[in-house]
Amino acid sequence: MIESTIAAIRPPDEPAMVAAGELHGRLTKPAGSLGALEELSVRLAGLAGACPPPLPEPAAVAIFAGDHGVHAQGVTPWPQEVTAQMIGNFLAGGAVVNAFARQAGASVTVVDVGVATALPPAPPEVVGGPRLLAANVRRGTRDLTVTAALTRDEARAAVEVGIRVAGELVDAGARILLTGDMGIGNTTPAAALIAAFARVDPAAATGRGTGVDDPTYARKIDVVRAALARHAPDPADPLGVLAAVGGLEHAALAGLILGAAARRVPVLLDGVIAVSAALAAAAFAPDAVGAMVAGHRSAEPGATAALRHLGLDPLLDLGLRLGEGTGALLALPVVTGAVRVLHEVATFDSAGVAEK
Amino acid sequence: MIESTIAAIRPPDEPAMVAAGELHGRLTKPAGSLGALEELSVRLAGLAGACPPPLPEPAAVAIFAGDHGVHAQGVTPWPQEVTAQMIGNFLAGGAVVNAFARQAGASVTVVDVGVATALPPAPPEVVGGPRLLAANVRRGTRDLTVTAALTRDEARAAVEVGIRVAGELVDAGARILLTGDMGIGNTTPAAALIAAFARVDPAAATGRGTGVDDPTYARKIDVVRAALARHAPDPADPLGVLAAVGGLEHAALAGLILGAAARRVPVLLDGVIAVSAALAAAAFAPDAVGAMVAGHRSAEPGATAALRHLGLDPLLDLGLRLGEGTGALLALPVVTGAVRVLHEVATFDSAGVAEK
Repeated sequence: MIESTIAAIRPPDEPAMVAAGELHGRLTKPAGSLGALEELSVRLAGLAGACPPPLPEPAAVAIFAGDHGVHAQGVTPWPQEVTAQMIGNFLAGGAVVNAFARQAGASVTVVDVGVATALPPAPPEVVGGPRLLAANVRRGTRDLTVTAALTRDEARAAVEVGIRVAGELVDAGARILLTGDMGIGNTTPAAALIAAFARVDPAAATGRGTGVDDPTYARKIDVVRAALARHAPDPADPLGVLAAVGGLEHAALAGLILGAAARRVPVLLDGVIAVSAALAAAAFAPDAVGAMVAGHRSAEPGATAALRHLGLDPLLDLGLRLGEGTGALLALPVVTGAVRVLHEVATFDSAGVAEK
Repeated sequence: MIESTIAAIRPPDEPAMVAAGELHGRLTKPAGSLGALEELSVRLAGLAGACPPPLPEPAAVAIFAGDHGVHAQGVTPWPQEVTAQMIGNFLAGGAVVNAFARQAGASVTVVDVGVATALPPAPPEVVGGPRLLAANVRRGTRDLTVTAALTRDEARAAVEVGIRVAGELVDAGARILLTGDMGIGNTTPAAALIAAFARVDPAAATGRGTGVDDPTYARKIDVVRAALARHAPDPADPLGVLAAVGGLEHAALAGLILGAAARRVPVLLDGVIAVSAALAAAAFAPDAVGAMVAGHRSAEPGATAALRHLGLDPLLDLGLRLGEGTGALLALPVVTGAVRVLHEVATFDSAGVAEK
């Protein structure tokens, strides 16, 4: 399934991009005055192969949840059970991602791709409310300081979960997918993925996650360095990298991105977990970058390293470090606005406005 | 009216700010993980004197339009008639500000406070659609390189137009006001205002506006420098500065900001015209800064100088330089999201989520 998905990913459509650039020049505004929104709308025209590209509505957030064997190394002060407890919070609508999704009119799909502990009883599903998909590949990864986090087969299965979720959401009507994640400890494998794919030092790829203290931060960098030294992951073998030092939610997010790109639907990236997974997706299929929109610059330093490697400029830079898809949701109106301009704004001719 | 408005502006309410900070610590997210949104929500609690502060809904954009005698100096390649023509475009719903306002669910009010040429026939007003308020103080300013742009009485009348519009919009239910502007040539007086209030060199305060070429840009800087040399505006006398080197829309925007602050309603600032007016408002009443939210960092260099002087960090930085209120509208969901978190997110206790 990964191979056929990769084979379906195409480079951007040049004529659609040219048409979008020309249309911008005729709209009632000074040329270039919408800055990053103009570039974004041109990219999205190239992805869709159409000018204007479709409005990115409705939007769907997919939150992939997983746990991490490296939790045993003391890389975070939060108990592992919080992953499962937060799934309960997502399904009850009480998390920040729910508040932002309601505001943006986006659906929320929670995918258990690798939670280690028992999920709390789910509240009754409400039409249009958050829903849970059961797709547990393994009850958390192994400790990457001791052994590979996943077998290649497990990593492949998790990527395929993401591809399937992308397909289901697009089939159900979604015209943009937003990445979400939940997993206590998951900034540690994200840092390892970024160090491996973007070839940066573990100290530059590793951040304080939920806000760990100095000793924990030092330990976290040591853990990432040790994992890279032990596994020597090869960035030309993305499945191998995901298996060695990744997480189940990271692998599934890479699959979601590949699935979206294959369907020519944009995928709006959230924070450091998302961009670490995006590096894996780009290693699988370089043209997948054409489907990626960087929602924001996470406060995690690894996110900046990953975005630089991907050649993506983030839309927002608000010091966010929450995850869940929250930063992607805040950026969604910017993406929608960028496309809306090409649909709705009058031209100088049609509006009877003089040009300079 | 200016004096009584200034007298009604209060400093932020400390207990509400403390309560908002404490509430953030109990919500199901790592402390501080929403970055700039947490600071913003605390500021808005201080403005409202309540925790949580009211959701900023509904939102109202006020676009103040005016023309400029300095147009005669060749500071822009656009004909002056475009100001009036763009008002026609706003009322027909064809401009970028209209597309963004529809998306954000914001009303659009266009105020003719100083247009020089005849307005095109307005289309029939639609309920909930854009509307035009006639409040022309003068048919464009005088050329600030030759004489004061406005008399003190004219400047006062324009400020009062803004105060009145703020009051009407809040009375009609608006819980956040967004600044908009239209005026061919209006980045030149904005640069002069910024140079005067923020005490920066005209070269640092002046930008390329709609994208002028090198000779026009050099002329524009010379014009700003000459205006400051001629009038030597005193930043301690904001009405005098607005009269000497301002514009009618700049003065009205200063009034809108003062009016919003007096009603304890936030005002979301757009680009360089807005922040130049905000400097005047802050000179009238330093506590008015508590009502200001900087929507974005305009590509105009003067905007950055003004924001620094005001001590405001912008929410977006997307290279926008369109005006009309477009950047403020793009930032609105961030403001709403920041407040929504305090209203809707579950606490660790209520959600049964463990703390670290």
